[in-house]
Amino acid sequence: MTTTYEPNMILKHGDYKVIGTRPVRHDGADKVTGRAKYGADFHANDILHAKFVRSPHAHARILSIDTSEAEAMDGVYAVVTGADLPEVADQVVALGEGAANLRYLRNNVLADDKALYKGHAIAAVAASSPHVAEEAADKIVVEYEVLDPVLTAPEGMADGAPILDESLRTSEMGETAEGQSNVAEHFRQVKGDVEAGFAESDLVIEREFDTSTVHQGYIEPHVATGLWNTDDKITIWCSTQGSFSVRDEMVGVLSKPASQIKVVPMEIGGGFGGKIPAYLEPTVAVLSKKSGRPVKAVMTRQEVFEATGPTPGSHMTVKIGVKNDGTILAAHADLQFEAGAFPGSPVGAAAMCVFASYDIPNQQIDGFDVVVNKPKTQAYRAPGSTNVAFATETVLNEIAEKLGMDPIDLRLKNVAVKGTTRADGVTFPRIGAKEVLEAMRDHPHYSEPLDSPTKGRGVGIGYWFNVGFKSAVNISVNPDGTINLTEGSTDIGGTRASVAMQAAEVLGIRAEDVNPTVVDTDSIGHTDVTGGSRVTYATGWAAYEAAQDVKRQMIARAALIWDVDADSLELADGVFRSKTDEELNMTFAELAEQLNDTGGPIMGRGALDAGGLGVGGGSFAGNIVDVEVDPDTGKVDILRFTAVQDAGKAIHPSYVEGQMQGGSTQGIGWALNEEYFMRDDGMMMNSTLLDYRMPTSLDLPMIDTVIVEVPSEQQPFGVRGVGEANIVPPPAAIAHAIYNASGVRMMRLPMNPAAVTEEKMANGS
Amino acid sequence: MTTTYEPNMILKHGDYKVIGTRPVRHDGADKVTGRAKYGADFHANDILHAKFVRSPHAHARILSIDTSEAEAMDGVYAVVTGADLPEVADQVVALGEGAANLRYLRNNVLADDKALYKGHAIAAVAASSPHVAEEAADKIVVEYEVLDPVLTAPEGMADGAPILDESLRTSEMGETAEGQSNVAEHFRQVKGDVEAGFAESDLVIEREFDTSTVHQGYIEPHVATGLWNTDDKITIWCSTQGSFSVRDEMVGVLSKPASQIKVVPMEIGGGFGGKIPAYLEPTVAVLSKKSGRPVKAVMTRQEVFEATGPTPGSHMTVKIGVKNDGTILAAHADLQFEAGAFPGSPVGAAAMCVFASYDIPNQQIDGFDVVVNKPKTQAYRAPGSTNVAFATETVLNEIAEKLGMDPIDLRLKNVAVKGTTRADGVTFPRIGAKEVLEAMRDHPHYSEPLDSPTKGRGVGIGYWFNVGFKSAVNISVNPDGTINLTEGSTDIGGTRASVAMQAAEVLGIRAEDVNPTVVDTDSIGHTDVTGGSRVTYATGWAAYEAAQDVKRQMIARAALIWDVDADSLELADGVFRSKTDEELNMTFAELAEQLNDTGGPIMGRGALDAGGLGVGGGSFAGNIVDVEVDPDTGKVDILRFTAVQDAGKAIHPSYVEGQMQGGSTQGIGWALNEEYFMRDDGMMMNSTLLDYRMPTSLDLPMIDTVIVEVPSEQQPFGVRGVGEANIVPPPAAIAHAIYNASGVRMMRLPMNPAAVTEEKMANGS
Repeated sequence: MTTTYEPNMILKHGDYKVIGTRPVRHDGADKVTGRAKYGADFHANDILHAKFVRSPHAHARILSIDTSEAEAMDGVYAVVTGADLPEVADQVVALGEGAANLRYLRNNVLADDKALYKGHAIAAVAASSPHVAEEAADKIVVEYEVLDPVLTAPEGMADGAPILDESLRTSEMGETAEGQSNVAEHFRQVKGDVEAGFAESDLVIEREFDTSTVHQGYIEPHVATGLWNTDDKITIWCSTQGSFSVRDEMVGVLSKPASQIKVVPMEIGGGFGGKIPAYLEPTVAVLSKKSGRPVKAVMTRQEVFEATGPTPGSHMTVKIGVKNDGTILAAHADLQFEAGAFPGSPVGAAAMCVFASYDIPNQQIDGFDVVVNKPKTQAYRAPGSTNVAFATETVLNEIAEKLGMDPIDLRLKNVAVKGTTRADGVTFPRIGAKEVLEAMRDHPHYSEPLDSPTKGRGVGIGYWFNVGFKSAVNISVNPDGTINLTEGSTDIGGTRASVAMQAAEVLGIRAEDVNPTVVDTDSIGHTDVTGGSRVTYATGWAAYEAAQDVKRQMIARAALIWDVDADSLELADGVFRSKTDEELNMTFAELAEQLNDTGGPIMGRGALDAGGLGVGGGSFAGNIVDVEVDPDTGKVDILRFTAVQDAGKAIHPSYVEGQMQGGSTQGIGWALNEEYFMRDDGMMMNSTLLDYRMPTSLDLPMIDTVIVEVPSEQQPFGVRGVGEANIVPPPAAIAHAIYNASGVRMMRLPMNPAAVTEEKMANGS
Repeated sequence: MTTTYEPNMILKHGDYKVIGTRPVRHDGADKVTGRAKYGADFHANDILHAKFVRSPHAHARILSIDTSEAEAMDGVYAVVTGADLPEVADQVVALGEGAANLRYLRNNVLADDKALYKGHAIAAVAASSPHVAEEAADKIVVEYEVLDPVLTAPEGMADGAPILDESLRTSEMGETAEGQSNVAEHFRQVKGDVEAGFAESDLVIEREFDTSTVHQGYIEPHVATGLWNTDDKITIWCSTQGSFSVRDEMVGVLSKPASQIKVVPMEIGGGFGGKIPAYLEPTVAVLSKKSGRPVKAVMTRQEVFEATGPTPGSHMTVKIGVKNDGTILAAHADLQFEAGAFPGSPVGAAAMCVFASYDIPNQQIDGFDVVVNKPKTQAYRAPGSTNVAFATETVLNEIAEKLGMDPIDLRLKNVAVKGTTRADGVTFPRIGAKEVLEAMRDHPHYSEPLDSPTKGRGVGIGYWFNVGFKSAVNISVNPDGTINLTEGSTDIGGTRASVAMQAAEVLGIRAEDVNPTVVDTDSIGHTDVTGGSRVTYATGWAAYEAAQDVKRQMIARAALIWDVDADSLELADGVFRSKTDEELNMTFAELAEQLNDTGGPIMGRGALDAGGLGVGGGSFAGNIVDVEVDPDTGKVDILRFTAVQDAGKAIHPSYVEGQMQGGSTQGIGWALNEEYFMRDDGMMMNSTLLDYRMPTSLDLPMIDTVIVEVPSEQQPFGVRGVGEANIVPPPAAIAHAIYNASGVRMMRLPMNPAAVTEEKMANGS
């Protein structure tokens, strides 16, 4: 089959009425007119405002905290420190994507005896206005013993490094090692015999890579309001990716039963993995308990940068051995990831992804989770995978060049397919890596000539395993032939629509005939975070089940009305009809109108566990990117960018494209500009959006997309989550393009003008 | 069985763990601390405030409305008149308890070509503040042609009476009569041969009765905020007894599909039937459409009195014939009820109740629905029944005296029981009229001697048929062994608790382990109004069904965990256990904790039509009341008051008692003080809570209660609604007591000092 590629192409599978169309999103009017209520839009008459005292030191022992002067101020209603949070034991709780050790979570919310990063919360004040709160916070006196900081994973692993947590012992291949260390964990995954593989290889390339700490950069800062009621019930209004995750974290940190906590998810202005952890929520709750009034906290941008989860900087060594025909025989990765102030970097996820795109018989992956004096790292869109793809794909591009092979052909020769087993033992079901690579190879972008020696083209692919987890959806049928749908998934990127459309498809109604609402934790079954690319997959599946539940009941009702056997009826194309009697037929709307008079309203429920990590085999994405490198300054301009991704089945193609374009943009920012620029003492020097340079529309060409549809084998409509894999390939693909444009092979991020120029001078090129 | 009566006695049936206990209500903390959000507590940043122009005349033709000066004012964003509402045809829609003709509803919301009562809304203004809106409303010039008003049913029925609606034709026994009339309907119900019955009687008493227009007197005035969004979706935040009823009314008045309208029911500060109709909602919606901003309207107390639904004044003739042994042979009622400005008084309900307490072989009931120049009447707690019980019970008390019989014995001799058929053809299932009378007869209050000739005792009973209708409940199970329950029923009188307790009973958990939430119309299946005493009956039943749905799924999950057949398991006393293997048992909480790891969350749904009018046979109530009548002033003091009512099964006895005490109090107010005191031109002279004299705690003794439990045959727990029957007996019982204390037989309400004195003087006593 020859495909004629056009802008925003879809290589389509399956034939549906609603799925695959592009209806206007249900929350569109609210979002564009400013009526949508975000975290900061919550208000109450007697609300108090919280401000935090944060550590000015990256590493310090807290000797004393004197809050007396602040407490005495007019307009101050409560002051809390870490001592106001209950003690919690080491206990790991699942939080949707990732997990949290409760003790670490608590000590991150308000520091225990040590400040572990600049910006670490030490105390908080609730006052009648943010200004009074700020003034009061300034009056809290904290005495510190300043300690030397550790700022990168290799520094943290070095002998004699300052120790962050004296009680931390390395989990070394599952055993607890003796002696203090900053290495929380060292794990190893082995498949085959990696040394033998390298020995048999005709070409072995080993390179070291460094990536910087970068932030998710959501536009809306963290915000939360808490009310601890007189009946001990706590309500939290916040901007979060997961209301139930916040509830679970509150359960853990405050030692309260889940049913005492209600979390109301407001609209969210971006999260990308960074709005899963609780930062403000426990503190505003205890401030509310002390003051008897609702307490609201809104972070400044500086607080967001300095005290919420960036994604880890990393130091990686990747070694790959191939035969001369391009067959990869062996691969080794050594991954040293910054965990930030507390253990728990995404190095485990990185290990799942580092060689996932390829079928490699002999592998070894070593992962190191290293605490450093930076904010606790958090998930950021395919967490860990962008780091490792930068390494693996760069090595492969060098191998392709050395072997004189087309880099896509090299990848296709080794591509993972259904049945390929990874080093972690996971065997893929049907996946679309090959189809993504073929679409890249066949795309006109890939064969279009470049018109200048300062321009270069690069390619790279990436993987995210996706998660399933738990979701719940309720549906009720309206008399006008529409349905109301409630869900627990915070809407990011149009998930109201992508969930609603799956219900519509089952019932044969229009997407516009579904009215989706995101409700609070008191009003729906447990629903995991909007993260892991899971919502359209899992909550969509729950909507499918709820719609099936409605369908069954409506068929039963039609059978009652017609006095026939329910088994003789079906719902097809939005019409309830008899399989045997043509006379008996009723549209969905005609039956809906009769429900109240024929037995009462109909509701449907769908609640499920859609699986764990790697559901449906995950999603692969690839980029073709053209850049121009200024020979004098090293500045890189993106000229053309094509993003290809396997969506399984694109429910709402516009929102899939939006994810692909958004992920690509974040990957480009990470590749070229973004970094925590830190002083030796751990002070971030660029904690504003002016200085922390995210790409704007002026920095980017229109990002062309190709949606590949290789349906997953599990989800009813073959959906694969598409929120994450798209951020993975850009750094590697851009590095490849920079090399082709300038001869400089970049092995550290960001590849900003200074770095490119420095590398160029170091290479003498 | 000898019963020892104690204060707040329950004559109990059935044995339950949760049902029948008295847990703290779930919304208690919010209600007592002021955190509960009532209609007026809704706020939005860009909110506008509405004020109304209302007719100063009780009856007038509207010649012109000039809004130009108001529209030109600074701070005025929109002005609307009746012309801004779409034309709607005559169409009757069911609204839970009662129904509405859409044309009348529309013309009541904003007058068409005539003002039909003083206070009738003519125009409305939305402005930046209530003060600006008020000023602007004052600048709207309305030209009227003032017409003579009609203020009572007999006046309206008189030959040559001014005609309110030239197009109105009497529905005369189902046929449309010719000629203009203020009588919207005259219906007749006949059973047996009433003339023959009277002919056979030894004693026939016929008396005429008048009752005044009274108001429900809820403390919270009507309030609504509307937002007509740019996507044509309308959201209404309001104080209402039924969010879906408001939605249905908006559908009708604005000609919009139901799914375009979301109604968010705020907490409600009393309704008693008067907060079912939409008054403000369509107007704030069209003001919002015109202004593009949310618009809020809050009624003043005067507006509540003058422009919302009181219950009808009535003129009634009741004639009863008995044999000397007390057997009632025949009864006739002629009921002339004020409909207010538009047809639709509760005279139909009155007819269902007037003789319902008794088994009378020959009956005729004539009902007249008469339009008058007063606000459109609305439901008020057992609408119509209080009026007719005053008549019937007073005649029976006179008969008892004439026959020398004990008045309770007379009633017991004729009491309706299972199998008794009413004049409307309805045959009772199991009912508790007899048990209520027996409890009254046996109660120590009834035999306690009175110590003064100015003191008297009276009795009376009353009936309300109760309704079923549609309700929906969703449940989700929390990991801590509690459940969240969502329902569409506005909570009046503790229905969160009474609904939650029925779910708890099914699942073997505590009432406190259920967390009930009243959600909006987008988040639950159709649920009819909180009215007709239906919530504990019908929404409780839906909760029962939802809990059964949860129970089935949890048993299936336990079976999965234990790898046994689900049929071998049961839930008993809150423990899931094998019927055959003692080792296999798990508490509800233990299983709940495992759900997320064994297949995902569990939700249950319950949606049903619990039946129409008269479900379960309704509820009977009776009073024993002692009064003292001041011989000089005619002032009546209530000395002792015992309220008896059949609750079927009292789910939460405290809230049943609260209903009984509240209903009794309203009945006492209606009996002794409350009335629309009107000038001849239709101006209400006492439209404040100072002058409209409702009883306060200082006016009342503690009202003792006896809950009788004769379980209904339909509801799973035998519940009967208890919200209404309790208001019915007080006027008759008090009239009886006044007679026994003073020799004055009152046949009009209110029985205030002036009326009692006047009657005394007229009788020469």
